[in-house]
Amino acid sequence: MTTSGRTQVAIVGAGPAGVLLSHLLAADGIESVVLETRSEEYVAGRIRAGILEQSTVDLLTEVGLGERLAREGDQHHGIYLQWPGERHHLDFVDLVGRSVWVYGQTEVQKDLVLAAHARQQQFVYEISDTALHDLESDRPWVTWTDADGVRHRLDADVVVGCDGSFGPSRGAVPDEVRRTWGRTYPYSWLGILADVAPSTDELIYAWHPDGFALHSMRSSTVSRFYLQVPNDTDLADWSDDRIWDGLAARLGHGLDGWELATGTITDRSVLPMRSFVQQPMRHGRLFLAGDAAHLVPPTGAKGLNLAVADVALLAPALAALLKGDPALADAYSDAALRRVWRCTHFSWWMTTMLHSNDDPFDRELQLSQLRWVASSRAGAAGLAENYAGLPIGF
Amino acid sequence: MTTSGRTQVAIVGAGPAGVLLSHLLAADGIESVVLETRSEEYVAGRIRAGILEQSTVDLLTEVGLGERLAREGDQHHGIYLQWPGERHHLDFVDLVGRSVWVYGQTEVQKDLVLAAHARQQQFVYEISDTALHDLESDRPWVTWTDADGVRHRLDADVVVGCDGSFGPSRGAVPDEVRRTWGRTYPYSWLGILADVAPSTDELIYAWHPDGFALHSMRSSTVSRFYLQVPNDTDLADWSDDRIWDGLAARLGHGLDGWELATGTITDRSVLPMRSFVQQPMRHGRLFLAGDAAHLVPPTGAKGLNLAVADVALLAPALAALLKGDPALADAYSDAALRRVWRCTHFSWWMTTMLHSNDDPFDRELQLSQLRWVASSRAGAAGLAENYAGLPIGF
Repeated sequence: MTTSGRTQVAIVGAGPAGVLLSHLLAADGIESVVLETRSEEYVAGRIRAGILEQSTVDLLTEVGLGERLAREGDQHHGIYLQWPGERHHLDFVDLVGRSVWVYGQTEVQKDLVLAAHARQQQFVYEISDTALHDLESDRPWVTWTDADGVRHRLDADVVVGCDGSFGPSRGAVPDEVRRTWGRTYPYSWLGILADVAPSTDELIYAWHPDGFALHSMRSSTVSRFYLQVPNDTDLADWSDDRIWDGLAARLGHGLDGWELATGTITDRSVLPMRSFVQQPMRHGRLFLAGDAAHLVPPTGAKGLNLAVADVALLAPALAALLKGDPALADAYSDAALRRVWRCTHFSWWMTTMLHSNDDPFDRELQLSQLRWVASSRAGAAGLAENYAGLPIGF
Repeated sequence: MTTSGRTQVAIVGAGPAGVLLSHLLAADGIESVVLETRSEEYVAGRIRAGILEQSTVDLLTEVGLGERLAREGDQHHGIYLQWPGERHHLDFVDLVGRSVWVYGQTEVQKDLVLAAHARQQQFVYEISDTALHDLESDRPWVTWTDADGVRHRLDADVVVGCDGSFGPSRGAVPDEVRRTWGRTYPYSWLGILADVAPSTDELIYAWHPDGFALHSMRSSTVSRFYLQVPNDTDLADWSDDRIWDGLAARLGHGLDGWELATGTITDRSVLPMRSFVQQPMRHGRLFLAGDAAHLVPPTGAKGLNLAVADVALLAPALAALLKGDPALADAYSDAALRRVWRCTHFSWWMTTMLHSNDDPFDRELQLSQLRWVASSRAGAAGLAENYAGLPIGF
């Protein structure tokens, strides 16, 4: 038995890209259905990014999603860049007139879902066997099986793939049309969340011969840390003591009078470091947004912001398309990809500058570049402009 | 039979670093002898670099070597950065308030040697078996064999190695003291000199899928060109037609209305692309300057300028040392190496941004970086500040 339905925009994926898109479309009077393989609780609980660019904050605020962010988010004027014996502050506001906000992706997701429920947005969770059909026609459709084993069919004017790197949308673009680029970096991040006040007012990006370390945070009582580890790292080999000792050594090396406060570790995981780009980001009536089209390593804090920027371009393009004007929709892929490649390059640059390897010449190049970025206004402004983020549609 | 002599500073190598050092020392009343394995004609005729930084021009002018440079040199306000279909001008004067000069190393060498002859500077050419002795004492000495087979000994207060990457000075620093870093790039440059007016007012750095190309110049009637070629390139495989066709394709790709003028090729060679740094740049009474301590690939036009900056730091340091104050001499190596590593990083950055390889992801990163440098003021200023050169002693 198959049940069937119809909507204007079928959105595959209920992460921040998909739910924000449904929000922006609803504001334009466009109906959508959001489909998700995971449960609502699972999606809500995923620990992900925590840094919002100025333009992401501006967009969320403009569309009525900025209230709690303004209250609970923490505006940062810059970051610290560090190597053994030296810690330098880069002031983004002074350098480029923009800042960033610490506000976890889990919080953004909560705000989005709350708003979606308030407008009675239609979600379908815990589905399987999702498949996309007739994407090259004006009447694409999506099929799936629900948790009870019932098959469903949803007809739409447009299908949008916000289903990340493992979802079916990416692969629904025929091989003869799509081009992909990828790189797997020769290291991973061991990330922890800990119940402890941050030992710093802004994020610390630390180069160290043992490997990169990052001191990030979620709130005044919750800190987030990352350690560069080999790709085959087993969490079982990293006791709490080993993690804290590694962080203290890498973040405190040669700095008198600075101490790392430790606390209870509440979450830990090993994150791979990958770059991936697929283009075009549109095929017929299928549009891709966020991780479905591109992945960046987390070093530049670009993943979530890039997904938001995609959706900010896509929503007005779909609204115009559904009213009969295809110009913005036709321009979407090229316009989105300009930012994607800028952020892909920046994330690669931050990653390769900060992660140590065994090549002695590479190490000296990294240290020379770090010294330049920290001491040259042009060098610092280059980092700041990319980190704080370019205006949407730049 | 051995003849012997004595001077204050024995300078090994009569290239621009060695002869400029003798010039600066003479201005301080310090006597030196310049030793060279090649003939005066050979050194004078070597085709090398052609771009002088602002600080190099300022220094040469200050010490009375700027007259012909001011008359015949060509001030450039910037460079062109290009990839298929796009050519962008970076205006260094606007970006960082500094410029560069086109004035060949052969011309600098001529001016230096003319001034040296005028002050009756003692040169010894065409020597062999040069050896450095007792460098850790206060009375180092140098021995060599002259063209007639006669052995010579020169005692000095200080020995300076300006004898490039193949001279004996670099290796005279004991292995247990010195550290070296090196990289050989997986491509070379095929360089030509041609009797033809430049087809551009300022240098063109062109990224192209076939390989990098550079349109440089020596004068209003002599152009200099380079093509990225594989490391095993045989000049015999590159006919004049193949060279001009390659240059026209890489420099003209997608640019309507631009044409490359061709002419008689008067010189051609294949240049390896290497980075090398040895430190410390001082061991006892031996000091290293220029290529003896460091090599950069030619992409950033840093080699000659770096040698001049070394010598500009070294001359006052030696003058003070000989008067009994060792502070500047003790600081020389660290001070020089700060600039060396800055230029080593910049040369590596320019090289890896502009030379194509077979990795499709690298290509997109290169193009993304080029677009950013050409469109962002911070990006352009970062290139300009390094290319036009930091002040000496920065």
